Amino acid sequence: MVPSTTPPPAPRHGPGRIMRAEIAEQPEVLGRLLGEGAAAIRETARRIAARRPRFVLLSARGTSDHAALYAKYLVEVELGLPAGLTSMSTTTAYGAEPHLADVLVITVSQSGGSPDLAASTQAAVEAGAITLAVTNNPDSPVAEAAEFHLDLLAGPERALPATKTYTAELLALYLFVRGLHDEDTSAAHVLPELAEQVLARDDEVQHLAGRYRFAERMVTTSRGYGLPTAKEAALKLMETSYIPALAYSGAELLHGPLAMVDNISPVIAIVTDGAGGHALRPVLDRLRGRGADLVVIGPRAKVATVAHGFALPTAGVPEALQPVLEILPLQKLAYEVSMARGQDPDAPRALVKVAKSR
Amino acid sequence: MVPSTTPPPAPRHGPGRIMRAEIAEQPEVLGRLLGEGAAAIRETARRIAARRPRFVLLSARGTSDHAALYAKYLVEVELGLPAGLTSMSTTTAYGAEPHLADVLVITVSQSGGSPDLAASTQAAVEAGAITLAVTNNPDSPVAEAAEFHLDLLAGPERALPATKTYTAELLALYLFVRGLHDEDTSAAHVLPELAEQVLARDDEVQHLAGRYRFAERMVTTSRGYGLPTAKEAALKLMETSYIPALAYSGAELLHGPLAMVDNISPVIAIVTDGAGGHALRPVLDRLRGRGADLVVIGPRAKVATVAHGFALPTAGVPEALQPVLEILPLQKLAYEVSMARGQDPDAPRALVKVAKSR
Repeated sequence: MVPSTTPPPAPRHGPGRIMRAEIAEQPEVLGRLLGEGAAAIRETARRIAARRPRFVLLSARGTSDHAALYAKYLVEVELGLPAGLTSMSTTTAYGAEPHLADVLVITVSQSGGSPDLAASTQAAVEAGAITLAVTNNPDSPVAEAAEFHLDLLAGPERALPATKTYTAELLALYLFVRGLHDEDTSAAHVLPELAEQVLARDDEVQHLAGRYRFAERMVTTSRGYGLPTAKEAALKLMETSYIPALAYSGAELLHGPLAMVDNISPVIAIVTDGAGGHALRPVLDRLRGRGADLVVIGPRAKVATVAHGFALPTAGVPEALQPVLEILPLQKLAYEVSMARGQDPDAPRALVKVAKSR
Repeated sequence: MVPSTTPPPAPRHGPGRIMRAEIAEQPEVLGRLLGEGAAAIRETARRIAARRPRFVLLSARGTSDHAALYAKYLVEVELGLPAGLTSMSTTTAYGAEPHLADVLVITVSQSGGSPDLAASTQAAVEAGAITLAVTNNPDSPVAEAAEFHLDLLAGPERALPATKTYTAELLALYLFVRGLHDEDTSAAHVLPELAEQVLARDDEVQHLAGRYRFAERMVTTSRGYGLPTAKEAALKLMETSYIPALAYSGAELLHGPLAMVDNISPVIAIVTDGAGGHALRPVLDRLRGRGADLVVIGPRAKVATVAHGFALPTAGVPEALQPVLEILPLQKLAYEVSMARGQDPDAPRALVKVAKSR
């Protein structure tokens, strides 16, 4: 648990080199979005707000689906608008013809290249929706299908597990949703510096990774703004290390899957500094009561209550922005566990990056 | 794979007795809902249709959340209305104050007793929504909080894993959504008889259960109307047998988790006879190409393409009604695997039925 002051330099070749480099790029990407990107996002938000959307639908897959879930919380909490995640097959497989007047449809896609996302965006345009694409490629089919576009400015992402585009999606969506009500977003300006600090703590992550090297299954849990982090962490662990990792909201966990959690299913809890973390407290008490192996990612005071954890610098960071920091040690954890198992996280077996292959 | 003609009588005492009996009750419960229940559901649908909802939000937890997901497909495909599953913590933890005029909020809860569901239903009433509760208890807090109520008429459910209330929820929601457009629902009348036939095939389920007795993890997958079945099957397996079972839409599976599927992660695919099953085909091809251990639950022609499966009598059954049949062999599978492992599926460790305890 001793923080490293001088992290070892990234290897230039070999397994995991690309993922590692892209994880490390995140402070720079966040800074670019806050600098070069923010004005365009605010202008897009202003134009969409003038159209007065009454309902928000979000479409995405994989990692971007977790950014979409994050945006759903933002929309519900910050805007008070009802929101939903689309079931894409209803339009692409069943040919549903939804009535989408006054509906803002946001499609989130790193590559913007997925044919079903382009098709569902196009269908939303035809159904009269206000359409917004959030992608890392303004020339992509999804970006071109939508009326509005937010560019992630994250640079090419080459490792198969998405990392820097995820945090860029979170920040872009935060700036956009806050912009819809012309709210101040200056709290976000601490993120590049804090992300840099978090990412420097290699030793702590390596210590945690050692605990999971031989894990056969894992559970991640959270509530509220931390839930997208729990889901994204589970996906990262699965796609790099092939560990079956189940993500649950704390409330769902008590409705059945808790039966599965015992001392052979280690739990990682993402505890936000705010209402979500507060709502998670009875779940953590229950897990502790069962003797579950519990690691907490969250504010220092919460981490201090358990034997193992990773303390985040949440002081002064609004709860809605904490997910940008929370995922960083978990991306690195997935990387470290994968490397410790002798796998190559850059190119998990079976996974083909959409941007490249279809 | 030889169907049993005379299933053995249920034991009167001992582990699993209650779950087994409640699974067996389902044809009777479905028949009751179609008989005694249908007129009230249609009348409720008529009154809600007159209010002309423009959006639908669904709130639920656990098994009922899978019924809510099923209803989301129905609403999008059959009604062409945008729909979403609520993130309950946005109101209960964050105090969001949503604008819900013209919004139909459907709360699905077996017991109707969950305090957070009662609170979120109450919040929806105050926000101006049209509110509908779907519960097995008309005197429950959730039913009392909502303006409208559908009674599942399933009789007391005493085993901790929900079974008969799940299929009752599916059928009640089908009758309701079809009723909103005054559509014919006579296709549902075959369900009690077909459910009886499916439930009689004990030998086939026991054969499948033998394959999973020592499984350390499982994956379930589907697309479209079958996806709620995949999720509910995973939950049943987890809460009775403690097997970490991951449910994915076929589309999501290709976005990362496929890396985790290999010959030690057996896959159960729920293949509907219709557009959802068609959309799943490339996923099944990919799984077969990887040598995955694949079991298909679906129409006979699809089951014939794999070494192991369970054929459903889908001929003449609309795709939207097939989920009522699909889950039956999977409920029994969860029961059988749990019993084979020497566990008591009636009372999984750590799980406490909401109706009884809070």
